[in-house]
Parts: sequence; C-alpha cells; structure tokens
Amino acid sequence: MTTSSHNTAVTVLGLGAMGAALARALVKAGHPTTVWNRSASKAQSLVAEGASAASTPYGAVRASDVIVVCLLDHDSVHDVLDPVAGELAGRTLINVTTTQPEHSRELAEWAAREGVAYLDGGIMAVPEMIGQPGSSILYSGSADVFERSRPLLDLWGESTYFGEDAGLASLYDLALLAGMYVMFAGFLHGAAMVAPAGVTAGEFARRAAPWLTAMTGAFAGFAEVVDGGDYTVPGQQSLEFSSLDDMLAASAGQGIGTEAVAMVQRLIQRQIDAGHGAEGFARIYESIKQPAAAR
Amino acid sequence: MTTSSHNTAVTVLGLGAMGAALARALVKAGHPTTVWNRSASKAQSLVAEGASAASTPYGAVRASDVIVVCLLDHDSVHDVLDPVAGELAGRTLINVTTTQPEHSRELAEWAAREGVAYLDGGIMAVPEMIGQPGSSILYSGSADVFERSRPLLDLWGESTYFGEDAGLASLYDLALLAGMYVMFAGFLHGAAMVAPAGVTAGEFARRAAPWLTAMTGAFAGFAEVVDGGDYTVPGQQSLEFSSLDDMLAASAGQGIGTEAVAMVQRLIQRQIDAGHGAEGFARIYESIKQPAAAR
Ligand SMILES: NC(=O)c1ccc[n+]([C@@H]2O[C@H](COP(=O)([O-])OP(=O)(O)OC[C@H]3O[C@@H](n4cnc5c(N)ncnc54)[C@H](OP(=O)(O)O)[C@@H]3O)[C@@H](O)[C@H]2O)c1
Ligand SMILES: NC(=O)c1ccc[n+]([C@@H]2O[C@H](COP(=O)([O-])OP(=O)(O)OC[C@H]3O[C@@H](n4cnc5c(N)ncnc54)[C@H](OP(=O)(O)O)[C@@H]3O)[C@@H](O)[C@H]2O)c1
Repeated sequence: MTTSSHNTAVTVLGLGAMGAALARALVKAGHPTTVWNRSASKAQSLVAEGASAASTPYGAVRASDVIVVCLLDHDSVHDVLDPVAGELAGRTLINVTTTQPEHSRELAEWAAREGVAYLDGGIMAVPEMIGQPGSSILYSGSADVFERSRPLLDLWGESTYFGEDAGLASLYDLALLAGMYVMFAGFLHGAAMVAPAGVTAGEFARRAAPWLTAMTGAFAGFAEVVDGGDYTVPGQQSLEFSSLDDMLAASAGQGIGTEAVAMVQRLIQRQIDAGHGAEGFARIYESIKQPAAAR
Repeated sequence: MTTSSHNTAVTVLGLGAMGAALARALVKAGHPTTVWNRSASKAQSLVAEGASAASTPYGAVRASDVIVVCLLDHDSVHDVLDPVAGELAGRTLINVTTTQPEHSRELAEWAAREGVAYLDGGIMAVPEMIGQPGSSILYSGSADVFERSRPLLDLWGESTYFGEDAGLASLYDLALLAGMYVMFAGFLHGAAMVAPAGVTAGEFARRAAPWLTAMTGAFAGFAEVVDGGDYTVPGQQSLEFSSLDDMLAASAGQGIGTEAVAMVQRLIQRQIDAGHGAEGFARIYESIKQPAAAR
C-alpha cells in the first residue's frame, strides 16, 4: 500500500492561498484531510468542503502520518514545527514552502535528527493552477518519500524529483523564478519604451507574449554552446553584433530608465573587453558565472 | 496594379545574412531581382538562383522602382544611399536595416527632401525564418508604400503597419528586442544558478522554455493594471510578496553574479521605498518610467 491510497490521512499546515489550494485538492480526491492555520478562520471553507480543522499544530500532526507544510517562509516553518518535533518523529514531512536551498538542507538535517522522513518541494504554479494542466512541482530529499507519496503529489501537478540533496528543488525553483522575474522586467521595459508613442501596454503584451514565446526557442541552442564550452562554434550571433546601444539610446530618448537593458549590456561588454567579442552571445553566461567584483 | 505584382522589379542593397534571405524570397516568388553588396562575392549564389548582380549601387538603383535596403546600421545606409540620391528620386525605398527611431525619422526626412517614397521596417525574425511561419516584420512611414508593396512584403513574413511616424517600427522593434535580450539574460542566470548542482544548461533549457512560455501568460494581466493606472486592484501579487532576497542569496551562495536579479530587485525596492509595497508587482513599470537618477 502506498502512502497515498485515497484513505491515507494527510495534514496540511498553513492555509494561505497556496496551502488552501493543496488541501482542497486532497479533500476532493477523498483523502481524510486535517488542516491547521495560525488564523483559524482560514480553515472554515475547507471544513465546509470536508476537511477537519485542528486547533493546534500538535493536534494536526497527530491526525496523520503525512504532514504537508506550506507556510510563508523558512522561519515560519520552524516557528510551527519546532514545538511539535517530538510528535513529528516517525512521520513523513513534505515541505513545499518556498525557501533557499540552504534552508531546505537545514530543514532536512533537522528532520533527520528528529527522526522525520523529509521531502522538500518547490511549487511552479499559482494557486488556481493546482491540479490543473501546467502545474509543476519540483521535489528533492528522500527518494523513498517521493516514491511512496507519488499518487498524492500528482494530485497537485506534474511531479519531478531531482535527487537526495534536499536543496535541489529549491535551487531549481529559484532559478526558474529568476528567469521569470527578469523576463517580466524585460517585458515591462519594452512596454515603457513604446508607451510614449501611444502604444498601450495591452497592445504591446499581445505582441510581446508570442514573440518572447518564439524566442524561448533559442534557449536550447545557447545551452548547447554553454554545455559544449566552446563559444566560438560557427553560426552564432556574436557579442559584437549584439550591441544594445540602439536600445539604450532609444530608451533614454523616450525618457525612461535603462536599467534592464544596461544590465544585459554590461554582461556583454565584460566579455568584449576580455577579448571575446567575436564569440557567441551565449558567452554572457561567463559574465554571470564570474561576478564583476571578483574579476 | 500594385507595386508587387510578380513581375515588379525589385533591388536589394546589402546581402548579409538577412539581405540575402530577403532577396532569395523575392527571386523565388518570380520578381526580377537585382542585388548589390559591397563585397561582390556575396551576390554569387543569388545570381545562380536567378538574381541579377549590379556592380554599383547606382546600377542597382536604376534597375528597379522598388529599392530594399538591408545593411548593417544607419551609417552604412547613408554611406550607400547618399551618393545615389539623385537616382533614387521618384522611386520607392524600403529600409529594413535595424536602427534607432531617431535614425529612421532622419532617413524619412532625408528621403522626403530627395523626393523618395519611404517605408521603414524592423525585422522580427532570423534569416532562416524569412518567408516561414513566425516571421514578423513591423513597418512605419508611408502608408501608401505599405499598401502598394503589401504582397511583396508579405513574402517575407507577417506585415504590420504602425503609422506615418517612420520611427514607430524601429521603436517597437527595439522594445521587443529589449524584452528578448533581458529574457535571455534571465535564462542564462537561471542556468548558472543550477550548474553548480550538476544540472546542465540543456536540461535547464528543457524546463525553462515551457516555464517562461507559460509565464508570458501573465503579461496581459500586468498590462491591464498598467493601462488602468491603478496598481491597488485586488488579486495581484504584491511587491512586498515579490521579494527576491532568496534568489539573490541562493545566487551568491552558488558563487555566481547577481546582476540580473539585483536589477529587478532594485526596480521593486524603489516602489516599496516610495510606500507602494502592498501594490501589485506591475508597479515596477513606474520604476522604469521614472529613471533612478531623476527621482
Ligand atoms: N501564491 C503563489 O502563487 C505561490 C506560488 C508558488 C509558491 N508559493 C509558496 O507557497 C508558500 C505559501 O504561499 P501563499 O501564497 O499561501 O502565502 P500566503 O497566502 O501569504 O499565506 C502565508 C501563510 O503562512 C502563514 N504564516 C506566516 N507566518 C507564520 C508564522 N510565523 N507562523 C504560522 N503561520 C505563519 C500564514 O498564516 P496566517 O493566515 O495566520 O497569516 C498563511 O497561512 C510560500 O512559501 C510561497 O512562496 C506561493
Ligand atoms: N541576422 C539577423 O538575425 C537579423 C535579424 C533582424 C534584423 N537584422 C538586421 O538586418 C540588418 C542586416 O543584418 P545581417 O544579419 O544581414 O548583417 P550582416 O550579415 O553582418 O551583413 C551586414 C551587411 O551590411 C553591409 N555593410 C556594412 N557596412 C557597410 C558599409 N559601410 N557600406 C556598405 N555595406 C556595408 C555588409 O557588406 P559586406 O558584405 O561588404 O561586409 C553586409 O552586406 C541589420 O540591421 C540587422 O540588425 C538582422
């Protein structure tokens, strides 16, 4: 029997927007689900849907063998779990709170000391996407917990396991989020560039979304060059060709800031200054790997 | 009869990677095509395919009523066209060289003085995409030239006209390219974050491409907030929630640079400092519109 047969009891600690979405998916799938939240009122709608509310973390932990934690951050996880460590011993802890890799590793060590089986997760979805196509959750830590809990985890989205190092999922999660936030800044920079010409952000978005989607097609080629380690392979757009001067001038000309584009220009320029101007654009990877201050 | 019936003669000045692709599409469609390139050897393969090579820009301009220019930059366009201005008078000039909006406007004024009908274009495609699905070319300047040349322009990709201001296509082009370059930097930052954990850039690309594609879905929502001008509308992720501290710490922890993420963090922080922390993430648009130095 796997942990996640439909009568496996599961506890969810934390009913913010995300924790509530995770708990709801469990209730819907027929798991006896116990929930707890610091502000008790957030449990009400889930109770109406069939969950049991515990009045303390202690009671919540006692109710199930599998404890899912979805709180604000690393500190709040310790605030809630430290007092109930004795009760957690022998149970399974699945922590999907977004944290730094170091914090995930620290929690994995803490769990090991307390005799708790630990799986760390990073959620690549917004609450509305949980259980829907496109929802993806990254895991690392105990392979055993991942395998046992698979059917349960798959209720939330596509589950991917990266390895025993509990920090891997967080690291991957943060790396994908970094890509996202930087892309958002690029999109909003573009919107600000065209605004003075009377183009609405909505009109720009309708063009930018398919354009940037098409341009993600370049990632595989950049990756091949990065992984191959030879930035001189032919057929690449060179760093020298990738001058962003026109973009910087046009942004300044529209009276807007240049920070987003200037950031990329600096990554390019450092490689040109180091004599690599004829090599491929993917070489800005080396500017990122080698922080400016450390040169 | 439109300019671009299939027997309309067209001249292409500049046979770099892009100019050659444009000329090839014209030849294939049956247009009598005259080509010229500073380094004459680049005309050879096109001549084999059916184009005529002119030995000077003067001869090339005389051969056709429609002159397409695809050179390196604004300066090279003047280098080539200034000496043949008298011959261009009365003809149609379609300049798809990537330039700044100011330069496009300058060329439009120059063309008007010389009695040349002028259309400016910005190519949103790589040479291999010309004539293929996904290729998009943005135009501004003479509406008459755009309408007349439409069937010809459509041979290269989807044609969109923005208005009589010749600088608009360049501005739009640069804004979309800004989004692209910033996204590329974000992708490569993410790849650098996971590399120390043994994840190849190729593996990261396979996950980052669909992830960022999915996240372009957020643009429309950001745009709605920006266009509405009210960053307090409910349901948005707040700036305070969008702390990139974990990302910065994880990047620094992996020994890589933080420039890409720190750029976004600064845009966020300026709005939080100005008292807007509880408002939506789209508000970083205001940090871009209002350059840091000008605060
Ligand atoms: N929302 C998303 O789109 C999304 C996407 C991916 C990942 N995540 C991650 O999922 C986690 C939860 O996000 P969320 O959207 O659910 O956040 P949220 O709506 O802000 O909820 C935060 C939760 O943490 C609780 N909490 C905070 N500090 C606490 C403390 N010291 N002790 C006990 N409980 C505490 C809150 O309890 P109260 O109700 O009592 O305040 C609430 O249940 C975060 O790590 C987030 O990064 C969220
Ligand atoms: N390639 C792309 O992916 C792409 C995508 C979108 C837009 N574009 C734009 O398309 C334009 C052309 O790009 P490309 O890829 O074809 O560039 P390219 O392969 O580097 O070719 C540059 C062309 O400009 C000519 N040239 C440069 N300086 C000149 C001068 N002073 N006088 C006369 N000719 C001169 C070159 O002639 P020689 O052969 O004699 O050097 C060559 O024909 C650029 O504005 C570029 O930004 C390119």
